[in-house]
Amino acid sequence: MDYYGGIEAGGTKFVCMVARGPQDIRAELRFPTTANPTETLARAVAFFKQQAQTVNLVVLGVGSFGPVDLEPSSATFGYVTNTAKPGWPNTNIVGLLHAELGIPVVIDTDVNAAAFGEYAWGVNRAIDPLLYLTVGTGIGGGAVCGGKPQHGLTHPEMGHILVPHDRLRDPFPGVCPFHGDCLEGLASGPAMSERWGRTAEMLPDDHPAWGVEANYLAMALVNLILIYSPRRIVLGGGVMQRQALFPLVRAKTQQFLNKYIRMPQLFSDIDQYIVPPVLGNQSGVLGAIALAIAGIDSR
Amino acid sequence: MDYYGGIEAGGTKFVCMVARGPQDIRAELRFPTTANPTETLARAVAFFKQQAQTVNLVVLGVGSFGPVDLEPSSATFGYVTNTAKPGWPNTNIVGLLHAELGIPVVIDTDVNAAAFGEYAWGVNRAIDPLLYLTVGTGIGGGAVCGGKPQHGLTHPEMGHILVPHDRLRDPFPGVCPFHGDCLEGLASGPAMSERWGRTAEMLPDDHPAWGVEANYLAMALVNLILIYSPRRIVLGGGVMQRQALFPLVRAKTQQFLNKYIRMPQLFSDIDQYIVPPVLGNQSGVLGAIALAIAGIDSR
Repeated sequence: MDYYGGIEAGGTKFVCMVARGPQDIRAELRFPTTANPTETLARAVAFFKQQAQTVNLVVLGVGSFGPVDLEPSSATFGYVTNTAKPGWPNTNIVGLLHAELGIPVVIDTDVNAAAFGEYAWGVNRAIDPLLYLTVGTGIGGGAVCGGKPQHGLTHPEMGHILVPHDRLRDPFPGVCPFHGDCLEGLASGPAMSERWGRTAEMLPDDHPAWGVEANYLAMALVNLILIYSPRRIVLGGGVMQRQALFPLVRAKTQQFLNKYIRMPQLFSDIDQYIVPPVLGNQSGVLGAIALAIAGIDSR
Repeated sequence: MDYYGGIEAGGTKFVCMVARGPQDIRAELRFPTTANPTETLARAVAFFKQQAQTVNLVVLGVGSFGPVDLEPSSATFGYVTNTAKPGWPNTNIVGLLHAELGIPVVIDTDVNAAAFGEYAWGVNRAIDPLLYLTVGTGIGGGAVCGGKPQHGLTHPEMGHILVPHDRLRDPFPGVCPFHGDCLEGLASGPAMSERWGRTAEMLPDDHPAWGVEANYLAMALVNLILIYSPRRIVLGGGVMQRQALFPLVRAKTQQFLNKYIRMPQLFSDIDQYIVPPVLGNQSGVLGAIALAIAGIDSR
């Protein structure tokens, strides 16, 4: 029986899976992303080789941390390029996996893969355009538009957008090494840890941190809504594990839009418009599986 | 011979055209958009009826100020809905034109039409995704993605995105009735007039106004680039008539991105990445012609 391989290649951990969809998962393996890409990719290869002894593995999908070169005509297509992750700059992730496994390899960013996974299965199926934003160690965003992950000059890098930052009310300078107080600089997990002296998960629901966090995330959502006009926004990642954050973000988004766009999705139906991932912490890896099934931009 | 009709229905003026493209324009008529939509649309209808006596007019394309209902299944498809323009809320622009002219009518926003026009002809042909931002009486943006104008929950409303606003350096509160100091509130033509006490066209090239303007526009472009990853950005509208503004905007965009995205389009080739409209002040109406030719979402 034909099966598909998927890798969510995150900056912190790898998630490898053999599946045909969320209802038919044969195996899943999670392990840390070390500073040695050869070693990390070898663990993934070993997993898929072992699985291939019992199923017919036809295509491998990869959702990778970035930046990734997704230009099919580029000499470095399928490379992780100038990443800040030690050991990983200029890693030919597609070439290595293809050489070891001998099957077509499809690649996109981890967040485009997560968006595509949410688009492929469950209640978000075929919602187009669909945006996926992850808020965790970093902030990243992906999109599906016209049935495909969003590509262009390169891939979306939504985590680094600029948002209003009132330094009188919030003097925190931000943690982004490139932009200081961009969205990621102000609202990522590390930004929360540094601003409040403890990690997001240690902050109680009634801590003012969550209001500040919702403020910046809602500003970002307003910009995403006005630029992209998505039909749904999925918010995932470690920080969004905090369920109490969702109603705060929804309310602030409505406040900042100030009734400018009069669609029910931004009023009575907002609970179904700004939502947690249907696929939980498997959006990325199941999205990689969905990319493999769709066979988009494989080689 | 088959010809196409196009209307750029702007909040200030209507531009009507019969053409097959920028190289084959039969006639063009410009007149003010009054507070009486029946009267304004009647002038357009009279123009096209007269033209139809000598050519075979097959489809009419409309690029309209908004908000416009572009949802084909909606009971108010083709309506200008809750606009601030007096007299125009809930105007069935498609229905009226279709009833009078008896040919299919295609509609999109004025800025999606302008984006589609730039995408259809000239050096920007088939650049995908392509963004078009107009900076004038208001600020609006449109996009072409996957060969089609960007639609979603509704249409893009990029002019109202939130950008950093340092009130210590720039205490101007902004002029947007919905959001105060959103991009349109800070950087539209009326914002410039109110901030500096004279209209943009009266401000000399060396006035500090242009540095302030470039600052906000560049912040917006950074967000557009990070969210959308366009392959080209076209900047049109009255304020962008000022040629000296382009190099300022390009330099600030590079400064704010801070080398985060390492593509030549954002370094050595930025003069070909952030560009004025190839079609000049005809992007909108020729885009309406292009919509008519493509026949997207007509009825």
